[in-house]
Formats: sequence, structure tokens, C-alpha cells
Amino acid sequence: MSQTSSKPFRRLLLTGAAGNLGKQLRGKLAEWADIVRVSDIVPLTADAPHEEAMQVDLADRAAVHALLEGVDALVHLGGISVEAPFDDIMQANILGMYNVYSAAQKQGVKRIVYASSNHAVGFHPVTEVLDVDAPHRPDSMYGISKCFGEDLSRYYFDRFGLETVCLRIGSSFEQPKNPRMMVTYLSYRDFVELVRCSLFTNRVGHAIVYGVSNNPTLWVDNTKAAFLGFRAQDSSAEFAGLFPLQAPDQRMDDVTQRYQGGPFVLLGPMEPNA
Amino acid sequence: MSQTSSKPFRRLLLTGAAGNLGKQLRGKLAEWADIVRVSDIVPLTADAPHEEAMQVDLADRAAVHALLEGVDALVHLGGISVEAPFDDIMQANILGMYNVYSAAQKQGVKRIVYASSNHAVGFHPVTEVLDVDAPHRPDSMYGISKCFGEDLSRYYFDRFGLETVCLRIGSSFEQPKNPRMMVTYLSYRDFVELVRCSLFTNRVGHAIVYGVSNNPTLWVDNTKAAFLGFRAQDSSAEFAGLFPLQAPDQRMDDVTQRYQGGPFVLLGPMEPNA
Amino acid sequence: MSQTSSKPFRRLLLTGAAGNLGKQLRGKLAEWADIVRVSDIVPLTADAPHEEAMQVDLADRAAVHALLEGVDALVHLGGISVEAPFDDIMQANILGMYNVYSAAQKQGVKRIVYASSNHAVGFHPVTEVLDVDAPHRPDSMYGISKCFGEDLSRYYFDRFGLETVCLRIGSSFEQPKNPRMMVTYLSYRDFVELVRCSLFTNRVGHAIVYGVSNNPTLWVDNTKAAFLGFRAQDSSAEFAGLFPLQAPDQRMDDVTQRYQGGPFVLLGPMEPNA
Amino acid sequence: MSQTSSKPFRRLLLTGAAGNLGKQLRGKLAEWADIVRVSDIVPLTADAPHEEAMQVDLADRAAVHALLEGVDALVHLGGISVEAPFDDIMQANILGMYNVYSAAQKQGVKRIVYASSNHAVGFHPVTEVLDVDAPHRPDSMYGISKCFGEDLSRYYFDRFGLETVCLRIGSSFEQPKNPRMMVTYLSYRDFVELVRCSLFTNRVGHAIVYGVSNNPTLWVDNTKAAFLGFRAQDSSAEFAGLFPLQAPDQRMDDVTQRYQGGPFVLLGPMEPNA
Amino acid sequence: MSQTSSKPFRRLLLTGAAGNLGKQLRGKLAEWADIVRVSDIVPLTADAPHEEAMQVDLADRAAVHALLEGVDALVHLGGISVEAPFDDIMQANILGMYNVYSAAQKQGVKRIVYASSNHAVGFHPVTEVLDVDAPHRPDSMYGISKCFGEDLSRYYFDRFGLETVCLRIGSSFEQPKNPRMMVTYLSYRDFVELVRCSLFTNRVGHAIVYGVSNNPTLWVDNTKAAFLGFRAQDSSAEFAGLFPLQAPDQRMDDVTQRYQGGPFVLLGPMEPNA
Amino acid sequence: MSQTSSKPFRRLLLTGAAGNLGKQLRGKLAEWADIVRVSDIVPLTADAPHEEAMQVDLADRAAVHALLEGVDALVHLGGISVEAPFDDIMQANILGMYNVYSAAQKQGVKRIVYASSNHAVGFHPVTEVLDVDAPHRPDSMYGISKCFGEDLSRYYFDRFGLETVCLRIGSSFEQPKNPRMMVTYLSYRDFVELVRCSLFTNRVGHAIVYGVSNNPTLWVDNTKAAFLGFRAQDSSAEFAGLFPLQAPDQRMDDVTQRYQGGPFVLLGPMEPNA
Repeated sequence: MSQTSSKPFRRLLLTGAAGNLGKQLRGKLAEWADIVRVSDIVPLTADAPHEEAMQVDLADRAAVHALLEGVDALVHLGGISVEAPFDDIMQANILGMYNVYSAAQKQGVKRIVYASSNHAVGFHPVTEVLDVDAPHRPDSMYGISKCFGEDLSRYYFDRFGLETVCLRIGSSFEQPKNPRMMVTYLSYRDFVELVRCSLFTNRVGHAIVYGVSNNPTLWVDNTKAAFLGFRAQDSSAEFAGLFPLQAPDQRMDDVTQRYQGGPFVLLGPMEPNA
Repeated sequence: MSQTSSKPFRRLLLTGAAGNLGKQLRGKLAEWADIVRVSDIVPLTADAPHEEAMQVDLADRAAVHALLEGVDALVHLGGISVEAPFDDIMQANILGMYNVYSAAQKQGVKRIVYASSNHAVGFHPVTEVLDVDAPHRPDSMYGISKCFGEDLSRYYFDRFGLETVCLRIGSSFEQPKNPRMMVTYLSYRDFVELVRCSLFTNRVGHAIVYGVSNNPTLWVDNTKAAFLGFRAQDSSAEFAGLFPLQAPDQRMDDVTQRYQGGPFVLLGPMEPNA
Repeated sequence: MSQTSSKPFRRLLLTGAAGNLGKQLRGKLAEWADIVRVSDIVPLTADAPHEEAMQVDLADRAAVHALLEGVDALVHLGGISVEAPFDDIMQANILGMYNVYSAAQKQGVKRIVYASSNHAVGFHPVTEVLDVDAPHRPDSMYGISKCFGEDLSRYYFDRFGLETVCLRIGSSFEQPKNPRMMVTYLSYRDFVELVRCSLFTNRVGHAIVYGVSNNPTLWVDNTKAAFLGFRAQDSSAEFAGLFPLQAPDQRMDDVTQRYQGGPFVLLGPMEPNA
Repeated sequence: MSQTSSKPFRRLLLTGAAGNLGKQLRGKLAEWADIVRVSDIVPLTADAPHEEAMQVDLADRAAVHALLEGVDALVHLGGISVEAPFDDIMQANILGMYNVYSAAQKQGVKRIVYASSNHAVGFHPVTEVLDVDAPHRPDSMYGISKCFGEDLSRYYFDRFGLETVCLRIGSSFEQPKNPRMMVTYLSYRDFVELVRCSLFTNRVGHAIVYGVSNNPTLWVDNTKAAFLGFRAQDSSAEFAGLFPLQAPDQRMDDVTQRYQGGPFVLLGPMEPNA
Repeated sequence: MSQTSSKPFRRLLLTGAAGNLGKQLRGKLAEWADIVRVSDIVPLTADAPHEEAMQVDLADRAAVHALLEGVDALVHLGGISVEAPFDDIMQANILGMYNVYSAAQKQGVKRIVYASSNHAVGFHPVTEVLDVDAPHRPDSMYGISKCFGEDLSRYYFDRFGLETVCLRIGSSFEQPKNPRMMVTYLSYRDFVELVRCSLFTNRVGHAIVYGVSNNPTLWVDNTKAAFLGFRAQDSSAEFAGLFPLQAPDQRMDDVTQRYQGGPFVLLGPMEPNA
Repeated sequence: MSQTSSKPFRRLLLTGAAGNLGKQLRGKLAEWADIVRVSDIVPLTADAPHEEAMQVDLADRAAVHALLEGVDALVHLGGISVEAPFDDIMQANILGMYNVYSAAQKQGVKRIVYASSNHAVGFHPVTEVLDVDAPHRPDSMYGISKCFGEDLSRYYFDRFGLETVCLRIGSSFEQPKNPRMMVTYLSYRDFVELVRCSLFTNRVGHAIVYGVSNNPTLWVDNTKAAFLGFRAQDSSAEFAGLFPLQAPDQRMDDVTQRYQGGPFVLLGPMEPNA
């Protein structure tokens, strides 16, 4: 590690580094920071001289405080990213979120990029276009925990000036897996660009932005977040052939078709022991 | 007609099939449905094996009920599409509209694409940009009948779940005929695409969308209808040479220059026998 | 009739004079005009020297033009005021409305007070408070005809400067007849005051105002119509004893409880011969 | 307990019954229900034949499920109502809230009146007037837990139709204790009336309403919640003599004077062992 | 002057003290401050031991700086309060306003109550109800100078934290002098109360509020300024007898009837030597 | 000068012709008008047969009236375009603006394109995206004078029908000079196109539009001005290499980083003799 680095950050932390999106981002962060600290609840190792790896359960407060030491900024992808029993969600996404923010504030971290989700607003109907001020309409226990994260991070900005960009990420995979994802698709490239904008925009305050590519159909509108400089380059249009034209689904009472959250709206709440 | 069709719709109905826009759409519908039923108040014939032709006066309730039999979805371009005496408008566009919707509801039709018009909002000034929630400001008897159609179809959705996309069509011709149409121009290709989006989007509820191409100057904004997936491909910019730069019209009291409806604002109400 | 009258209007017309609300207003108009012309589709007679009585079917254009002769301003309560088959509604409330406005415009009438209805917006849920800009959500054929009347009168203002106040009247009876009317109640005294404000405010343009008393529970908000000067004096609170406290209705799928239009939402469309 | 009761509810549950506001409400509930079940985390006893008393820690899921058995509707005042360490807040107000709602849903409860707080929006400045759609701006861990409760109850309404009225209660005491409370004061009488409206309004969906009396100065506006029928009868004006006129506080950087949450904005987050 | 005063302010300044409204306020200020400094462009004298009188032309920068010395807060009624040639307006209301604010900032004054005017928004039509965020639509050179004052004071708050309440005063006289003033009337008592609220509310930031009594007809809505605590006690209703009911003015093109500014809309711009 | 010209304007006036932006525009105007009159406070000469040059101090009323003689339309770039002592600003931008508009009105000029500035709204934070209705938040004496110009021109439109397009110009130079200008950059080509749209759109009323290119990051949104037809062709993205990625500025209290006006927010008010 050079003493005379010209990289903009000295140490960036990536939580949830072993997950799908963490893997997309891990290499990119090395361009922006001298040291990239990666963590996850599963074991992981430093793959390069510039990396530091720490296995951490976010519900473990002491471990999280250690994790945040010496960190300039943080991309927080950790926690549970699907529907799960409330008790699990509470440990990972509520207690874990509090631990991360209380540690970050103590360590003087100035910026967190937080993986929120479109499931924070998934009970809005598919016939509305949401701007970044759309009210919370969580569609699941998972979605509720993301609302909690947005509110908690709002507090930390209002009270301590700790800035957060909440990314309401849609469906970020190699390609859309079903017709709904033609709308919510976020390419890996656009995801990385969104993180870049969120880290480097000089002032973000407490911002909310939808993580979607420039898809033909959109349920969200990022106009009010234009100060972040995010311009999606990709579009699900290139995958149009995967899903041939179909007549509309006639079951008007199928709520998984009516709400932006799709199948999530029927998942929760799971029983702890179910 | 194949028994083992893979086309998304079995039977689509096109009213007003003999009109200017009907002609643009007629061939295209065959790609989407096994059977295309075409109708108009003037005589017309089936031009292909997949077509069924019916000459129908929309004010004739029994005929309209017959027309709707076996129809999956409907593109309703029929009726009077210019200013006319109120009594004529009432028969074709008010009584006719009621007949179509009451028949569609009885037949279990789930989706109607309805040709509304920018004349439903034509008394808004040209210095405002209207979103799809802009209040009605009809500029003529014709415009009033289009407001009626939007309200009637809203009722059928709220009451029976019959979905409608109201297309507030601007000026859809081969090319703009005057400077105003540089703003309201909708290319034939964009018109067909708009119908495609309106028919195939899985849920549309009761939607309103402006039918304009991506012209340099716009009086309308479809952001809130982004869930329909309509992205105009064409622009009136290619016709810029038709209308050389002119100093602004100095007659500040010329209402045909002040309102989006243009010359329509002075047409009505015509006398029945005028 | 005095030649040297000091009353503000020379001749006021009241349509629907034989109806429930017409009867409340008829006597009051005499204080404001030298001559009160009263009309209805049923026979009625002039009850005083200052009255002129004309039996008129609003669908009869010639008769309506005669009715409007010499009129300064008009309180238009005529037409069908309940749900009915569309053909009847169309004659009385659509064709009739056109006849009244085209005649009024020809006669140079400057102001019409028009009995619209809360059924023009009756498909809004009871958990929303509507301001006067709330979009149309008609709950019945009757409601649709009232939307038509609001749009038609908007046109006549934009095009000819003929001013209208649209009164979205709730439930104007001696007293509320059911719990819903505790919310929509308009006392007779407040109704008369609302007409007074609508007639005498110097400029009204094209205005919409809800006709409700100052009831404890309200679904509507007249703030944006404060320029009319209407301040309700009465409240349904005085009838609280009629409807003892009840636990909420448990049938969450009972649409007559969910929408402001109440039982109207299930009435239409009636068959013409039903 | 009468078998042939005419009271609107059979069994109402009051949590937090031993607290300040619980005491105000306990007696009143007997007028509305045959059986009043009271609970708290501290010991309490049934004081009358119509009462059932249960000592319950809301973090104890099984106990909460037992508590909800046979309940028609619920006034949920339980949990921590001041700032506290996050771990305590999480047990009482987050886990406790989940337990109450998951139990209520299982038991088929149709309505919950939930004591939220103005601290859910306490980081809005005192120079703004908030309507019921104002975004969350929690001022403390306590405030964040109230945001969580609002979001969780929104989910239970969207998903299961379980209705909630969230009362963003200001300062409900015998009298205002400081100048800030002159703005946030809610008299006991108005508090009881607010609960009455919340329980008996036929449909409430998921509603938010501010719990303040009709004080001279207001930071909130309940216009959009007028469908609940709450009309405050009292005002802090009667206590004006307690707080003589003072020149404005000159310390412009005193955040406890700048935000609606007052001193709460500086309380959290407390350390668990502080 | 007592050394051990209990009055909230030590020294209040009143500019424009010799004018109509200045006279209403002068005596009242003595209740709130040990010393009341009064100034005007015309000669005036201290009428009591607690008064200091200074004759000052607001365009004289040095004199204004002297005027502001030792002042805690200021009610700024000075300047021209009617339409006048632009050069005069510019000296008194633009240069004068700058002088007052630059001096106040230098002296550390924390609060100014500024007499703006409804003529800052007088070109809004009488058929709209303006909230305190309504955009500027000045109706005269005078109105433009009031817009300038609002913008200048906004700057001094954003830049220096100098708080201002801009009072958009209507017509404050003994009684309304014409029908328009029935709408814009502000009783002297309500005017004094409005100043009291503006001086003593603990935080006001940069606020705008309409100065009108609780008149039957209103063109403005102070809901968003409820944090100031102003509740009008009086109403022009008590003067209803002065202006008997009249039919609406038929001259639809009379702009003095169409805009809230009334006759002001035709006054300016006057020629300097006219 | 041809008697049989086909250029759209006969005589266009350009004030501030010797300034940076004036130079960009001067040649272009010749394409649109037979005669281009150029003026500035510094000496300048006619460079071509179609040019007329006049050296004019805008504070000199008689000179300005002479300047406007025979003018069809005007691009008003004159005045002070940086922060300066108030007395200088008042002469050039307030008195000068009045002189221009009063002369234009007397001469019957129908359209003015006015160089306003983003400093009229520079005290909005960089984390907000402003539409063209954003309220004034001037960041300097210069910004206040631009607010004055917008209000004055609004008056001249409302009162006399004199149309104005207010261009809130960002940073129009060869290339961005600092990171802030990556957001506010307006290419010379886009500037000229913006003036073209402003001059030739048939009706503009009183319009406000932001003068920025299609930069990656934007603080403003011109959607509501789409009726002007301005589509930026350039972007600051081509200059991205000038400003390498940097970690966000950590000084959260640096107001020059927090507000859109950037360093302007600390400049004023300068002392006249400083």
C-alpha cells in the first residue's frame, strides 16, 4: 500500500461482499480506495494486497464497531436481502443497521451508500410511477426493514450530518428472469455506476434513488435525484426476446400482478419455525 | 384460422377501421390476434382470412352488442373525430361510447384502448406543459365528448374492472401540416407502438397518455404514464424545413394561437343545421 | 312588478323548481329579483305576482330557448337527480344541459349556478378528503352526467365567458337519513346560502364547490373555493342522536361502505327497460 | 357481563393501561365495550366486573398472542414512550409491535388505534406546518420506532386489510409544562375524543392524524384526516398565563428550539449501559 | 426607563410611525419594550418617556445606520405604501429596504417584521385562493418593490440568519371602504395581534403571512403559516350592511374586477413628472 | 439593408453586446434580423452593414428610450453580471431594468429575452432539483437584482402583454472551470439555441427556463418549460477528465459547497467603497 496514493479514498468498507452484488462491486472499489475492507456473515478472504477481509455478524455490536474502524466511507449491502422470518430480519437488518450506523457515527464516517430496496415501496400499484418522495408502502418484513433503514439513516443525517444515499435497488442480475424484471432490471454496469455516483457526488445529504436501468417500462422516476448524476446506460430492451408478447393476465384479483413488489406481497410474514 | 395459434389474442376489435388511423393499425393487429374484427359506419370488407368486417352505427345499441361478441380486447377509434353539431356528436360519441362500454362489460371484455384527444384539454394555454393528470379543458363539442369518454371509461374501471387506456392523440398524419402540428405530431409508427403498449402492458387500470412523438417542442409530459412503456421513436424535427423560422404572431388576442387546441377553440358549437 | 326596482337582478330563472331543493329556493329568489321564472318538467303555476311559470322538458331545444329569454342568471336544478337508465339520463342531463347552455349563451346570460353532485366524485374512497380540484370519479350514470355538465360549463366559460358555479351537493334534506348522510348533509339553510354566494360573488369564473354543512366528519375541503364566501352555519352534529355509535362494519368488501358515493356505486348502469 | 349487550364492541383491549394516557382512557372504554381488557408491563388489576387485566411484556410473543384472543379492536398505547437505549426500544416498540400485529392478524382483529408520536416527524423545523402526509423525520430512537410502527401497520393494512389509525400524539398532560407544549398540547378530553373517532369511524384504512388540541399556534394540519371526524374542543390558550411573553431565543444554533421534536433531538442514541 | 425591566424587549424600532398603521401600533409597543424608537420621514416627536423619535429618510444610509443602533427588533412599516413613480419607489422601498437590512445585519438585529403587501401578488385572479407560497404577481411598481423586499429579506435570512416575517397586509382601516375591502379587510386589532405573533414566536425563519381578518370571503389561506399563531378575531361581516347585494359586474373585461389587486392593476407605471 | 427582406425580424436589439455571451450571440442574430442593434456600456462599433452600435448606460433613461426605438425584440444581456456593491447593482440592474422595460412598453416591443441567473435561486441546496417554479432564493445582491428583473418582467406581461423569457443561465464559458461548473455548464452552442427558442416560439407568456446543457449531474429540471422547445445538445461530460474523482469535501459547514450558488453565497453584500 503506497504512502503517496492518489486514490480518492483511503479505506472503503463493503459489507455483504460475498453476495451477488457485492461480487460485482468488490473489484471496482479498488480503483477508488487504497484499502478495500470486505466483510460478510459467511467466511471470505482477502484476494489482493489492497484488501482486508472480516467475517462479521452485523448483529454483533462489538464486531461491527471493530469493522468500522478507520473507514472513510461504506457501501452497506449486508444483511438479509430476501423475505425471511421477522426475528431473523430484526437481527440482521434492524439491529444490524443500528450497529452499523452507531459505529459509523462514532468513527466519524461521513458517507454510507445503503442498499435499500424497491420492496420498501412494493405495495404501490404497477399503474403508478413513483418519484423519490413516494411514501413507504413495504410489501414484506424485508421491505419493512428497508423502511427502517431509510428512517434510521435519515435520523443520522439530521442529527449528526452522516450522509446516506439509499439505493432502492430493483432486480440486479445478469438478465431479467421474468416479465416483472423487465421493468425493475438494473444491469451490473449501471449498479456499479450508481454506487460511483453515490460515493463521489460532493454533497448528497440524505438521498433516495431508484436503482433501475433505462428500461422501456418504468414504475419509478429519478428526476428529483438528478443531483446524483446517475444516468443509466443499459436497458432491459435488449432482453425483449426472452418474454414474447402475451395478452394481459386476466386474473384481476392476482395481487402479485397488481403491485410493484410482485410475488413479495404474498410472502410475509413467515413464521419463525415454518 | 389456426386452432393452435400462438398469437396473444384470439379476437381483437378495431372500430373506426376505415378512418385514417384505423388504416394504419389494421394490418398490424393481425400480428397480435388470430382474428381481427374491423368495423366502421361506412361499408368495409374483410381483406384477409383472419378478418371479420361489420358495418355498424355506434348509436345502434343492438348492433354494437353484436359487434362486441367474442371480443377479447378493443381499439376504439370509432365515432366522430372532428368538430360537428352537438346532436351528431351526442349520437356517435356519447351514446355510441355508452353502447360500446355497456356491451363490452356484458361480454366480459377486459381491455379497451380508447382514442381520446388532446382536444379534451385543448383550452389549456400553449405556455403550460400538461401531465396526464391535467384537468379537463375541452375546446369544442368534440373535446367535450372525449371528456365524457374518459369519465365513462373511468366508471367502468372503478365499477367493473374493465381497463382502459385513453390515448390523447395529437396530430397523426404523414407529416405536420402547420406549425402547431410540429408540437402535436404523432408519427404513424409511434401511434402503432402506443397501441401496442396499451394492449400488452399487463396492468393499466384506467390510464391516460398523450399520443405525441418526441417532438422538439412539447405541451405535454408522459412521465406519470411511464408504466405503459411507450417511448416515442420519431420526432417532428425531421420536418423542420417545412416551416421556416417566423417572428412570433403579434396578435396577442388571437385565441387560436394561445390555446393548445388551436383552431378548434373557435369551431364550436355549430348549429345542427348550419 | 315595480319599474323602479332596487333588487339586484331583474329576472332569475329556477329550473327544477318543483323538486325538493327547488322548493327551498323558490321563495328566497324573490328577495333577489324582480321576476322569478320557475320551470319544471312537471306542471307548476306562478304562485305570486313576481313569478312566471313555464313547464319545460329540457330535452326540447326550442322550449329551452324560450325559457331562457330575458333571463339575467339561472339556478339550474333541473334534470334527473337520481340514478336512471342511460337513455333517460342522456335526454335530461346531457342533451338538456347542452340546450340550457347553448340557449344561455345566445341570450347573453352571464352566470349559471349549476347543481352538480358529489356523485361526480363518488368513487373516491371515504378515507380521502377531496379538494375542489379532485379528479372526476363518477359512481353512476347520474354521476357521469354531472361530470359532463361540469366539463360543458367549463367550455362555455373558457370560450364565451359564461360563468358557472358547480355545486357538488351532498345530501340536502330536513335531516340525515342514514350514517353516510351525517357526512354529506347540507342543511336547507346552508343550501340557500350557498346559492346566494354563488349568485352574488362578483367574479366566479368556473368554480366548483362542495355543498356540505359544517359536519363533524367531512370527505371534502372547500378551502380553494373560499373566494365564494360560503361559510356553512349548520352541522349534522345536531342529529348525532339519530345514529348511535356502532362498531365499524366488518364487511371490508362492501363497496357501498368504501366509497363516498355510498349505495350509488352499485346502482348503475340500469337497463332501459329494467 | 350481559349476554344481551347493546354496546358497540364486545371486547376492547387497552395496552399500556397503567400509563398516563392509559388511565385517561380506561374508564371511557367501558362505555363502548362489554369487556375491557387492560394490560401493561407493570402489574395491574381489574377494577370492575367488565375488566380483564393481564400483565404482559410485549416482547413475549406467546403472551401477546394470548392477550389478543377474543379482541374486537385495540388501543395500543403500550411500549416505551420516551427516549431509551436502542436495545430496549427494539424489544418493546419493534419486536413488541410485530408481536401485537401478527397476533392481531391471526385473531382477525379489524382495527387498531396506535399511539404513534410527533417524534416520528420531530426533525421537521418549527417553521413548517406538517400535513398528515409529511415524510418521516424521526428525532430519536423512540421516534424511529414510531416510524417503524407506522410502516408495519401500513403493511398489515395493505396485505391483510387490518385497519390502523396512527395517532401522532403531541403532549398530553394536565397542562402544558413549557412553551413548546403550548403548541403540542393535547387535552385529555381531546385525546379521548380522538380515540373515539378512531374506533368508530366506519372506514379508516391506514390513517395518520396529529393528536393536538386547537392551540393558537400549530405545527400540524389535520385537514386531510377530516374523514375521521376529530374536532378538538380544547386549546392551550387557556394556559397562556403560564408562559409570559418573551423575546425570541437568540441562540439560533440551539437545535432544541429549531425542530418540532424539541429536546428529543439531542437525547439519542443513548448507550445501553450509560 | 427602568434598569430592572421585565419587558421582553429592551428597544423596539417602529418605522413609518406617523402613518395610519404606525399610529395603531405605537402605543402597543410600549407594553413589549422598555424603549420604543419611532421614526418617519415626516417630523414626529417622542410622546412619552419610553419613546425615542427620529426623523429619517430611509434612502439616507448613514441616517438609517444610526436609526438601527441598539435596536433588538424592528417593525418596518416605513416607505411608500401606495403606487408612485418608480424613481420615488426605488428610493424609499428599494434603496431604503437595503439600507434598513444592511444596517440591521451590522447591528445584530435578529428579527424584522416587514410590511409587505397583497399587491406583491395582486395580479392573481380573484377566483383563486393563494397560500403563502403563491408566486409573486406584482400589480404595480409598489407591488414590485414589495416583492423586492421579500426577496431581500429572504437573502438576509439565508445568509445571516436575520429572521423576517413578511406581512402581506390587505386593507387595514377603520372599516372597509368598498366591496373589495370586504375581502381584504384587516381590523386594527387583528393587525396588532399579527405583529405580536410575528415578534414573539420563538422561531419564524423567513415567513410570509397574509394580513386579513376572518372575513366571509377570502382570497388567501394562512394554513402554512399556522406556526405563527395568528388567529384573526374580527371579520368584515360586521360591515355587511355597508354594501348591499348587487348583481355581478357585467363588464368581464374590467381588469380591476378580475384581479386581487383591484384598482392597483391599472395605476402603474406612473411617469416621474406626471 | 434590403427592403424585401425574408428574415423573420426587422430589427433585433442586443444589450451587453461587448460581454462574453454577447459576443457569442452577435453574429448569430444577423441570421434572424435585417438589422442588429448592439449596445453596451463600453464603447463598441458596428462591424457590418447590418449592425447599429450604441453606447448606452442603462441607468440613463433617455438614452435607453432612444435605444429601444424601432426595435422588434430584444435580448437583454446588459447590466452587471457578477456580485458588486448594491448601489452599482441598483443603478445597472434595477433602474436599468426598469428603463429597458418602460421604454420597450412604450415602443410596443412584444418580446424580451432576459438574462436572469441561477443566482436568483442560488440559496437552494445542491441536494435539490429545482423546476422552473422554484421560489426565489437569491444568493447575493446580484441574485436579488435578477429576482427583481423576473418580477418586473412578470408585471409587464400581466399588465401589458409584453412577453419575456427569463434565462436562468448557469456557467457559460468555453469549458467548465471547476467541479461546480460541471453541473451548471451551458455550452455556447446551447446558449445560442436557447436564445433561438426564446425568440421564435410563437407564444411564451412570461417563462422561466434554466440555461444548462445536458450535463450528467443536474440541479434543475426544465420539464415545465418544454413548450419552449429547448433541447440541449452538449454536455459537460466531455470535460470529465478535467476534474478527477475526489472524495467528498468533508467540511460539512462549508456553505459554498452546500448551496447551488457556490462561492456567490459568501460574496455579498460588498461595501460600496470596500
